[in-house]
Amino acid sequence: MLAAEVTIKPQFHDFDPMQVVWHGNYARYLEEARAALLDRIGYNYPEMVASGLAWPIVDMQLKYIRPIRYGQRIRVTATLVEYEHRLRFDYRLRDEASGEILTKARTTQLAVRISDGELMFAAPQELLDKVRALL
Amino acid sequence: MLAAEVTIKPQFHDFDPMQVVWHGNYARYLEEARAALLDRIGYNYPEMVASGLAWPIVDMQLKYIRPIRYGQRIRVTATLVEYEHRLRFDYRLRDEASGEILTKARTTQLAVRISDGELMFAAPQELLDKVRALL
Amino acid sequence: MLAAEVTIKPQFHDFDPMQVVWHGNYARYLEEARAALLDRIGYNYPEMVASGLAWPIVDMQLKYIRPIRYGQRIRVTATLVEYEHRLRFDYRLRDEASGEILTKARTTQLAVRISDGELMFAAPQELLDKVRALL
Amino acid sequence: MLAAEVTIKPQFHDFDPMQVVWHGNYARYLEEARAALLDRIGYNYPEMVASGLAWPIVDMQLKYIRPIRYGQRIRVTATLVEYEHRLRFDYRLRDEASGEILTKARTTQLAVRISDGELMFAAPQELLDKVRALL
Repeated sequence: MLAAEVTIKPQFHDFDPMQVVWHGNYARYLEEARAALLDRIGYNYPEMVASGLAWPIVDMQLKYIRPIRYGQRIRVTATLVEYEHRLRFDYRLRDEASGEILTKARTTQLAVRISDGELMFAAPQELLDKVRALL
Repeated sequence: MLAAEVTIKPQFHDFDPMQVVWHGNYARYLEEARAALLDRIGYNYPEMVASGLAWPIVDMQLKYIRPIRYGQRIRVTATLVEYEHRLRFDYRLRDEASGEILTKARTTQLAVRISDGELMFAAPQELLDKVRALL
Repeated sequence: MLAAEVTIKPQFHDFDPMQVVWHGNYARYLEEARAALLDRIGYNYPEMVASGLAWPIVDMQLKYIRPIRYGQRIRVTATLVEYEHRLRFDYRLRDEASGEILTKARTTQLAVRISDGELMFAAPQELLDKVRALL
Repeated sequence: MLAAEVTIKPQFHDFDPMQVVWHGNYARYLEEARAALLDRIGYNYPEMVASGLAWPIVDMQLKYIRPIRYGQRIRVTATLVEYEHRLRFDYRLRDEASGEILTKARTTQLAVRISDGELMFAAPQELLDKVRALL
């Protein structure tokens, strides 16, 4: 399974009046880990556009287990769990110091041809080749 | 069923390089509709704190059906679907002009006692009374 | 002088751990008022692109006088103060109830030709005509 | 002069439909560099609150010289330029690869006593001692 990990130090602006990271900000953390993995694969935003495809997120699910407090550093792991017909990533957010799981998440992306907005039901050969070269 | 609706005009800063609203920004739209409903119930953020409880989001699920383009106005409806043991809201985002469904979502919140961080498994009487008065 | 006004209810996610709107979020409020004025003029983002020009913000200044608290509604006024060589807007944020000034701000935009990135030192005739028709 | 530097890789969600980082997102980058410097001084958000003071931003000025494109990495330097009566930081954003200056900025913060909202016109002894120990 392909995976990538980033370390994030949530900043003051990420926190809400209840002194925890506001739940909507986690989408940014997921994206940072997903982008690190797509960079590793060599098929991130610029390559997607070059291949004539957009990959909109069509589904996002987050399960918040423990809150994030000011000063905490977190590790976000993104794992590619599907790539042949759609892109699906699983995520784990952990406290960097203890390794404790803070949040589980999943996102799903579908390929859309930019020229006409047509939904594609298979990944392009380029992506298949790049993923398989790393597996 | 209790529901509230807000109309939102996504702004330039909500859009991403693919010319659609970035998926993570929808959490703000959901919150605006949820806050409108909680205001109607009379149990929004200030009343939660006054009752000694925080209500963190523990689960958020979004299903993106159609993208939002610049210039579109959207209606976001939040419906209270559970309130006795936890707060659960269902959401529908619709294009204001056509009524077409753009996104479906759900959030779940649990009550946490602010004084000691203890998880509560029942809503406070104040919330039950306020919801029932409106039903 | 051309001006437009929007009313904004800052939401929970706009507030920081000190219980006031985080200073960086004001850029969104300014943009909403500026977009309302540009819509009135008929030269907002889609018309800018259609005219072959981008109008990046090259300068932004904010003077925060009083904080915004949860529950407050604010009125944001954008006034066009220059348009012949560059776009400059002045802003006032006021408490809706009392009219008290909360923040003063100014933004400056320059025209850049999208095709080659060349800086333009004069507004296009289309913009001049549209502004003068309203004055 | 006390300074700190952070390296930031702007993410997909930071970019706007014109393919550059949206101007309002820079406030987050400034805050990350400022927080790094305040951590070094030992007087960041938790210590501010412990000292009974809030330090709201009362002025922010940004001069955008060159845009940030997808894939660029930037270095943000925050320098403490005043600390006896108020906190003032100067910022430089540079392209990491070329060292070219992208943006100049300045923020000003005043001390406000949390207990009664009173404006303080001098920094607390704790902050003076900590800054001078590093100079």
